[in-house]
Amino acid sequence: MDPNMDPNRPSEFALIAKLFAPLAQAPGAFGLSDDAAVVPTRAGHEIVVTTDALVEGVHFLADDPPETIAAKALRVNLSDLAAKGAEPAGYFLALSLPARLDMAWLTAFARGLGANGEAFAVPLLGGDTTSTPGPLTLAITALGYVPVGAMIRRSGARVGDGVFVSGTVGDAGGGLEILTARRPGGEGAQYLVSRYRCPTPRLRLGRALRGVATAALDVSDGLIADLWHIADCSGVRICVEAARIPLSPPLRARWGETEAAILRAATAGDDYELAFTAPDASAVLAAAAAAGVGVVQIGTVEAGAGVVVVGKNGNLTVSRAGYTHF
Amino acid sequence: MDPNMDPNRPSEFALIAKLFAPLAQAPGAFGLSDDAAVVPTRAGHEIVVTTDALVEGVHFLADDPPETIAAKALRVNLSDLAAKGAEPAGYFLALSLPARLDMAWLTAFARGLGANGEAFAVPLLGGDTTSTPGPLTLAITALGYVPVGAMIRRSGARVGDGVFVSGTVGDAGGGLEILTARRPGGEGAQYLVSRYRCPTPRLRLGRALRGVATAALDVSDGLIADLWHIADCSGVRICVEAARIPLSPPLRARWGETEAAILRAATAGDDYELAFTAPDASAVLAAAAAAGVGVVQIGTVEAGAGVVVVGKNGNLTVSRAGYTHF
Repeated sequence: MDPNMDPNRPSEFALIAKLFAPLAQAPGAFGLSDDAAVVPTRAGHEIVVTTDALVEGVHFLADDPPETIAAKALRVNLSDLAAKGAEPAGYFLALSLPARLDMAWLTAFARGLGANGEAFAVPLLGGDTTSTPGPLTLAITALGYVPVGAMIRRSGARVGDGVFVSGTVGDAGGGLEILTARRPGGEGAQYLVSRYRCPTPRLRLGRALRGVATAALDVSDGLIADLWHIADCSGVRICVEAARIPLSPPLRARWGETEAAILRAATAGDDYELAFTAPDASAVLAAAAAAGVGVVQIGTVEAGAGVVVVGKNGNLTVSRAGYTHF
Repeated sequence: MDPNMDPNRPSEFALIAKLFAPLAQAPGAFGLSDDAAVVPTRAGHEIVVTTDALVEGVHFLADDPPETIAAKALRVNLSDLAAKGAEPAGYFLALSLPARLDMAWLTAFARGLGANGEAFAVPLLGGDTTSTPGPLTLAITALGYVPVGAMIRRSGARVGDGVFVSGTVGDAGGGLEILTARRPGGEGAQYLVSRYRCPTPRLRLGRALRGVATAALDVSDGLIADLWHIADCSGVRICVEAARIPLSPPLRARWGETEAAILRAATAGDDYELAFTAPDASAVLAAAAAAGVGVVQIGTVEAGAGVVVVGKNGNLTVSRAGYTHF
């Protein structure tokens, strides 16, 4: 977090470094005063690294509260670590900051980032702040530990495995719909909005799935599109029963319980639930119980390619990017 | 490099992942097909991590060639690793892409990134591509190895150490002046522009300085401002002789050899040379010779605070951010 990286706003950036320093308690972060951080290694483990950028107007809304922008940026990266079975070590933040965001905004953002880091026991290790003439852009790189060889890949699904998903899907899509005012809120609106703004990385579940899941990822593009990634990477077909796809009561109250509503939820994206395959359903349920997260089996892995969704009256046509109901 | 992260441009992003996949030959990169990468650990070593964001119009110019934008983004991050004495392990790229940049631009960018990665034997390990309504924004996170405890900090300078800098300073400032046409080129223009667009990370020198340098950083803000960082972090005063600050022949031809020219060069920034302190000048010269890089002593570390620049007729007034000549 070099306070003078950007020649245009040096004194403000020194203040920003001070704002973020309390988030950087790990010894290797050097209080954000150095050019780089040291991440200690752990015997028998390797480092898992993921990076995700979030852009205002693309991944969050310009008038989202700074606390939830911080929460989402950190949580979607932790969600990637969760899906890989990794235990977070820390994260780096590259912040490109429009001039209109003042110290009050930044203070709230740092507070949100700090609270979320504490909630998941993941320290800020370093970063970079620069000005931008464009929209607020956050790139977070998160690091975690897994035992050597234990990272859960996308490519390990095998014919005969069950297909599982944690929590419920579509809630974030409902929340986004409320926020963009295409349809105003109502009962359950707050829950759905919080699922859009503040996803829950399934870190305990991911770790419990080491050695249990054969393939896993977190649902960001939409359940169907993400299962398609597993099918592609694993060279298998994934067959899902529409009726088993889990929708929350607030979303069912809003979108209904038809197959169209279920497919809409399964293609909405931004869920950050874990979708995974595993041969032993009882081991999955034990892992879910240990992690305190609901998990349901929604389908099976078959020979072939792509994703098939089975409805009441046969297969539904589902493309990679969306769906057509007939 | 999730090809479908951004719902607005999924098919283009799948193409982008294909463009970048050849850069990701490391086993732990999984051909950019997974959510995360695995960075192997190395016995007796720890991981050094740095991140720097570059924004169009702030850190590079909108009409810079895509190859040199890629080169600079990677090299400034490698330069941070160099300053810390680290050996690069790989890097991650978060790319926020305006719609106007087409596949031809991206192909050239990927080619530049690949060529520079090869030049420094550093693989792409993963990344993320998203669209942005704003300027091109690149956040690179670079990882490297150092023996446990061997990272060269900013905070180790001790009274009596010599103060050193590699190469020459101010060249990038001259190059930027040419590119922004405040003053057209001339003899040596190409050299100065290349120093702005394509800095050289002093990786071999940085490694050779392990156990030799007591404090180090790479010059990005300007030599004086960066020495100020070392003085602050180390709790010392750094005293520099203006006449010893190394300027290249092309820059001397352009800006002259007055003390004003020297101070201008020492506050221009973007040099990505190493500035460091060390108690043993002969060990420094041996390290420089081993690395094949010119290094000169420009001053000494004293008790006190801040940076003092000594001119022909006494101390020059130099502030943290710039300078006043009297």
